[in-house]
Amino acid sequence: MNDVVRNKKLSIICFSGSFDKLVAAFTLATGAAAVNYEVHIFFTFWGLNAIKNDKGRHFIGKGALAKIFNFLMGGINNVPLSRLNFFGISPKLMNRMMKKSNVATLKELIEAAIALNINLYSCEMSMNILGIKKEDFIPEIKEVIGVPRFLEYSAGGERIFI
Amino acid sequence: MNDVVRNKKLSIICFSGSFDKLVAAFTLATGAAAVNYEVHIFFTFWGLNAIKNDKGRHFIGKGALAKIFNFLMGGINNVPLSRLNFFGISPKLMNRMMKKSNVATLKELIEAAIALNINLYSCEMSMNILGIKKEDFIPEIKEVIGVPRFLEYSAGGERIFI
Amino acid sequence: MNDVVRNKKLSIICFSGSFDKLVAAFTLATGAAAVNYEVHIFFTFWGLNAIKNDKGRHFIGKGALAKIFNFLMGGINNVPLSRLNFFGISPKLMNRMMKKSNVATLKELIEAAIALNINLYSCEMSMNILGIKKEDFIPEIKEVIGVPRFLEYSAGGERIFI
Repeated sequence: MNDVVRNKKLSIICFSGSFDKLVAAFTLATGAAAVNYEVHIFFTFWGLNAIKNDKGRHFIGKGALAKIFNFLMGGINNVPLSRLNFFGISPKLMNRMMKKSNVATLKELIEAAIALNINLYSCEMSMNILGIKKEDFIPEIKEVIGVPRFLEYSAGGERIFI
Repeated sequence: MNDVVRNKKLSIICFSGSFDKLVAAFTLATGAAAVNYEVHIFFTFWGLNAIKNDKGRHFIGKGALAKIFNFLMGGINNVPLSRLNFFGISPKLMNRMMKKSNVATLKELIEAAIALNINLYSCEMSMNILGIKKEDFIPEIKEVIGVPRFLEYSAGGERIFI
Repeated sequence: MNDVVRNKKLSIICFSGSFDKLVAAFTLATGAAAVNYEVHIFFTFWGLNAIKNDKGRHFIGKGALAKIFNFLMGGINNVPLSRLNFFGISPKLMNRMMKKSNVATLKELIEAAIALNINLYSCEMSMNILGIKKEDFIPEIKEVIGVPRFLEYSAGGERIFI
């Protein structure tokens, strides 16, 4: 089962900052780590939203976590209405998703990722473009890296773009 | 050519529910199956829209298939206009896409996937969040699984997130 | 390190036509090529926007490059506002992104891709749907291919969907 062993490594390029995709990324990552995969997450572009620290709050007035929530709300208000009528259970879905989407839950997923020793990286180029520093992120960000380093760390496993 | 043999396995995490991405997912899946790949599709979040059955219709009044069409329309009305002016052929594109986007076509792609023995799974967690049961899906859904099982089934092949 | 050697091959299915995802795709592709990966990019659907040639300009009045810019602007005007308030630096981000998003920069990334011998393909099916011909693309498009051929060329390496 050499192949299976080899594939016990999963790397996610977390590009998206929308709530649903962040949940998908962290669910996949923590699920893999729970069955002993070596997991790497490389946050880039909008994905950097997921790893803001408290210090980053003053940048945005209402705080970083409120920002995620606002983003989600903004997102939900802007997606096609039909998307909310998913399976005809829009209020149910909306309520549940809002409950699911509270800050604690996303925060918990990140905490689980950290507890499971998932390796978290931030993208050097995106940070340069956006003028963000490593200090603006949660301390668990292991390293600021570029594409070549990401490829090196993720070599020999799967790479997924979300 | 051990590597090539090993890679004759393709797994798609079908997260997206937009028409264009569903078409992309099924085109890739059926194309791979046609050249003898072992193919697995794991439907999650919005992607679950693709596998609703007729029983699911009463949930949404107009029927599941109309729903997909409405979703597409909703989607198209909400994407940036410039996106429709793609190559300056917006009416052409729009008409063609609408023709392509009729329910039968997406349904045909799913039927092709089934005929080609592509393995279809639905995501346990998404179903819990949304309150959907296996009975709400087409009967060809092989199994309701979570991330660990998905990783097990897809081990030794490529994993793609759409 | 047979595995690492094997993985020195990266293939991107470039489905998205949004500026940020195109930048992500080309950054990943050129970064990989720079560290000696064999890189393949398969442009499909909206991704075809990235490889339009000058001849394609007359289709859209303002020119193909202006079109990309317009698309970007259209895109930005249509994403949730909160997305622009990213880290509270929306004007900064917007200005920088606009600077980054000028045609030259995306063009430069494509030029870098070509200089690095990245293999560029366009999707046969999308072209049929949209009524686009190979002559509408930049001459560096190596071949018009379908899914089976793409799978063949990308076999033994990573496949990423953007």
